Amino acid sequence: MTLNFEHVTLGQRVRFGTGKAAENLSAEVERLGARRIMLIASESDAPMAAAVSSGVDVVLHYHDVAPHVPIEKAEKARAAAIEHDADLLVCVGGGSTTGLAKAVAMTTALPIIAVPTTYAGSEATNVWGLTEASRKATGVDDAVLPVTVIYDAELALSLPAHLSVASGLNALAHCIDSMWAPRADPINQALASEGIRALAAGLPLIKDNPADLAGREQALYGAYLSAVAFASAGSGMHHKICHVLGGAYNLPHAQTHAVVLPYVLAFNAPFAPHAERRIAAAFGSDDAVTGLSDLRSALAAPTSLKEHGLNEADIPEAVELILPAIPASNPRRVTAENLDELLRAAYAGSTLPGSTETATTGTATTRDKETSHA
Amino acid sequence: MTLNFEHVTLGQRVRFGTGKAAENLSAEVERLGARRIMLIASESDAPMAAAVSSGVDVVLHYHDVAPHVPIEKAEKARAAAIEHDADLLVCVGGGSTTGLAKAVAMTTALPIIAVPTTYAGSEATNVWGLTEASRKATGVDDAVLPVTVIYDAELALSLPAHLSVASGLNALAHCIDSMWAPRADPINQALASEGIRALAAGLPLIKDNPADLAGREQALYGAYLSAVAFASAGSGMHHKICHVLGGAYNLPHAQTHAVVLPYVLAFNAPFAPHAERRIAAAFGSDDAVTGLSDLRSALAAPTSLKEHGLNEADIPEAVELILPAIPASNPRRVTAENLDELLRAAYAGSTLPGSTETATTGTATTRDKETSHA
Repeated sequence: MTLNFEHVTLGQRVRFGTGKAAENLSAEVERLGARRIMLIASESDAPMAAAVSSGVDVVLHYHDVAPHVPIEKAEKARAAAIEHDADLLVCVGGGSTTGLAKAVAMTTALPIIAVPTTYAGSEATNVWGLTEASRKATGVDDAVLPVTVIYDAELALSLPAHLSVASGLNALAHCIDSMWAPRADPINQALASEGIRALAAGLPLIKDNPADLAGREQALYGAYLSAVAFASAGSGMHHKICHVLGGAYNLPHAQTHAVVLPYVLAFNAPFAPHAERRIAAAFGSDDAVTGLSDLRSALAAPTSLKEHGLNEADIPEAVELILPAIPASNPRRVTAENLDELLRAAYAGSTLPGSTETATTGTATTRDKETSHA
Repeated sequence: MTLNFEHVTLGQRVRFGTGKAAENLSAEVERLGARRIMLIASESDAPMAAAVSSGVDVVLHYHDVAPHVPIEKAEKARAAAIEHDADLLVCVGGGSTTGLAKAVAMTTALPIIAVPTTYAGSEATNVWGLTEASRKATGVDDAVLPVTVIYDAELALSLPAHLSVASGLNALAHCIDSMWAPRADPINQALASEGIRALAAGLPLIKDNPADLAGREQALYGAYLSAVAFASAGSGMHHKICHVLGGAYNLPHAQTHAVVLPYVLAFNAPFAPHAERRIAAAFGSDDAVTGLSDLRSALAAPTSLKEHGLNEADIPEAVELILPAIPASNPRRVTAENLDELLRAAYAGSTLPGSTETATTGTATTRDKETSHA
């Protein structure tokens, strides 16, 4: 296997400490020399944001946050930042809140300190998103990458256990799909492996005891790495499938990811032996498929798409929609036939037919493309 | 184990491709929009540098490179960069060449593209070094971090196999020492683990066949990760020992590192069980000490300091010099007694006495400090 890749590492500072968000924010604000902070948090997160920012100078408490960053909201927030002569954006909350801070940074070039309270991962990427007339546009701009991310597991306690597990499984999907995504390389694979290790350690602890801070820490840390790996590697087969199923058939996001992931892993693993070894090692399991399966059992993860609104009759159309979107980097050639088989298995919650058979023939004959791409 | 850390990720682009240095350099120069390149390479590397830069506009071929970057050489190079109105520095060579480019970037703020031909690792750090009146000063400045690093294993072929192995073992020491260095955290531990994996795979291939490009690739990739991890985590116990032995007794750098490393690993491993598990997994071995020992055997690494110039009578003084330099982050408490024991074992090439005994008592009673620090 030759090494042939281009990897972009995004420069960023992470301060990780449970119960330390306020202290770490003060230290970062001082390091950056900021004196006029625009604090962005939703109404419901406002009390938490006030506590976190108690030691710094806030010139504007801004609460007008909405999902998917509508362009009107972005423009109002940009105007407010300029009007109040802010010199730093601090966002406390989930993906929508971080997204609004990014929208402001895009046009003002103000630095961002992100204090995430969910496992959304937006804080670790240079990707922005804006919604105009119900259409979401996304783009990449280094100006929107937060300068510093402050993680505090106590802030994540407010996220209910079942949402934490669903969100954590989504992060896990980012890690696993990173192994064969279009810009997969050994660096983002190593970070994704560390993310799998952390999520596999943390999520069962949260499931057993939602107040477990060690579990929250591992999940938050794993979600961060999943975002780093995913932003670097791009969307692989798994995300392309889930994107179509969510968009065309309105299936629920988290459940779709949770159901589809083991099928994609079983489908690709025999054709990506290096990735398979990394994933297995990260799970501490003899093989990747078993490692994921054991974790899903511990988490009582959803098992079939039919429980979540997919109609069997839609599968042929879904195959047609998904097939052209599968990245060329995928280690196993995807055909209408094997994709149909995969979707039917995910629909029914059955074992993927043929995966054992391909495992014995595939490994020897198929080139492992995981780290070789243009 | 709680997660409590601050991690700084340095933003940088890596292009890795064997036989592709010229092509990748052209692409990067175009991406950066540079038109006036100052090309820095030693006289002996000049033909290679000319080949690599054949597709780009060089306004100045600069060859006046010397070890440890004497300040006079730095000032001449800075003046030359300004005189020729350079807009980009491209350095092709080892640590001294990269060091000179960094010295120029310090005062001119010109971007650097580094094309390393050895495993020195300077290209992945924001650390500069300058020598004035025989004293070496070092410092940290983000302006000296190369914007892009271009790795091409063919360029490393000129490094003889025995030097490659020595340099590779030095990189391995960076990885292992990163596990318990003052700023150790799970992110740099994960990258160090990946570095160990790559070096352990690559170095035996180079030893067996110096022309093996797959081995050179893995070693180059592992050396890059070792530099990233080391720059982030700082110097641990191993480097403090080697620094004193090299400075006070003039022992050879590479051999000293190669001999001392297994003793430090055996000394600390029982007290850093998480680090031990990471190292063992990276070696693909049941335990970390055996993994390193097997690799050292395959490489016929040097085994005793007495073969490399240490006098037994100097050990008590060495203990006194080293003891105050041991970082507080070290997982095992270092005393004059156990350090004396370690140095005597490394002197003689014998098994470290007591390491088995401490392994059984230490794990249970000692807190694993590896990821918990201020």
